[in-house]
Amino acid sequence: MQRYFVAKEQMTDHNVQLVGEDVKHIVKVMRMDLGDKIVCSDNDARTVICTISSYSDKEVIAEIIEELHPETELPVKVTIAQGLPKGDKLDYIIQKGTELGATAFLPFSASRSIVKWDEKKADKKIERLEKIAKEAAEQSYRERIPVISNVFSFQKLLQQLSAYDVVIVAYEESAKAGEKAQLAQVLSKALPGQNILIVIGPEGGITEDEVASLTEHGAILCGFGPRILRTETAALYALAAISYHFELMR
Amino acid sequence: MQRYFVAKEQMTDHNVQLVGEDVKHIVKVMRMDLGDKIVCSDNDARTVICTISSYSDKEVIAEIIEELHPETELPVKVTIAQGLPKGDKLDYIIQKGTELGATAFLPFSASRSIVKWDEKKADKKIERLEKIAKEAAEQSYRERIPVISNVFSFQKLLQQLSAYDVVIVAYEESAKAGEKAQLAQVLSKALPGQNILIVIGPEGGITEDEVASLTEHGAILCGFGPRILRTETAALYALAAISYHFELMR
Repeated sequence: MQRYFVAKEQMTDHNVQLVGEDVKHIVKVMRMDLGDKIVCSDNDARTVICTISSYSDKEVIAEIIEELHPETELPVKVTIAQGLPKGDKLDYIIQKGTELGATAFLPFSASRSIVKWDEKKADKKIERLEKIAKEAAEQSYRERIPVISNVFSFQKLLQQLSAYDVVIVAYEESAKAGEKAQLAQVLSKALPGQNILIVIGPEGGITEDEVASLTEHGAILCGFGPRILRTETAALYALAAISYHFELMR
Repeated sequence: MQRYFVAKEQMTDHNVQLVGEDVKHIVKVMRMDLGDKIVCSDNDARTVICTISSYSDKEVIAEIIEELHPETELPVKVTIAQGLPKGDKLDYIIQKGTELGATAFLPFSASRSIVKWDEKKADKKIERLEKIAKEAAEQSYRERIPVISNVFSFQKLLQQLSAYDVVIVAYEESAKAGEKAQLAQVLSKALPGQNILIVIGPEGGITEDEVASLTEHGAILCGFGPRILRTETAALYALAAISYHFELMR
């Protein structure tokens, strides 16, 4: 069944109101008709099955027939702090990271980030990334759309670390040195409901200075296996490993 | 250090001979000079550090100064049987799957595969995919380049299943039904050195008939977490989970 996220105020006890892009998608793209079923989520506690009871080119009204309890969110809240990568890699990290359960994405400008965001264009970029996250969340049956923050400076990132229960840094040198158990040890100590931050460098990796500052602030360096992963692969590895640890090893 | 795969016969006890594309890459792209160090692997047992001792536009000769024992291969041999996906997704699955340690890729024509390979163009396609795998293997410090087979029919895939110790089918319905422990249970029973086949359907998923045939042949249906993953994400999830299980949880 096709899924749509709506704002809380668009979902009453009995009905869901869909507007904007969703109307176009339901009427024009999916060519749905009265009585057709869709799944709607309010991006918080409610996910419902409903049938289309009326539509115009402005809005679609759907009657709620069943409340679902999908439980498709990771037991831990994972934020991906991604050093700004080149090209469209961030799009890709956000699409795949959303499928794999990330709670939030926090792009940051690392020393070795070649890309710099033009302040003026930042809002447009975030908007685009939010659209990618919304579509990936719908496609993967998520209950919540990950939050995407504007680009942080490294200093601002450091100031944020204390807000997380666990801070993990994907560290290539650990992988090269054959360090293997750290990530598993950290995850074994983490508890459901906790906030985990995964810091991943850009293409060139994070610098020794950045590593030093991060560890001073309590971050733990972890290798993600003995192979050297591209920056856009590291986030996916971390999220898949966290899903395996908290969702499948039960 | 830049890494290159060479054929066994190009590596003697003392020297490595590099030819073709690698010469262009060393001389033109990397602009290396005599004495510069590179890492070479014979795609089997040997990975060595060597220094460039001579070069022409035809070949580069490098003197071996150290034998390495990287141990970057997964403890289990994982083959990804991928139902032919649309567009360039197979390129992507092979690049990322190689980074994550896959031993081989076995594309197959599933009932819901929209793409069909033109026999005449198949060899060219495989060649392109092998180049992607070689580059990803070099970049990720692999000791071996994954093998990429030509497209199998579903019947031919079924005949192959007995060649593997464990056959896992990524099954969306298991995920939707909230099945959670199966993959972890299967991996707990698998032993280092064993051959694991992961069967993944194309965009539309595998059909009930295909599922029935696979299970009749001993395949085990596994959910990869409660979220619905795109076809190109499923292989990465499986490989990351296997890496986490066999390489980090030790």
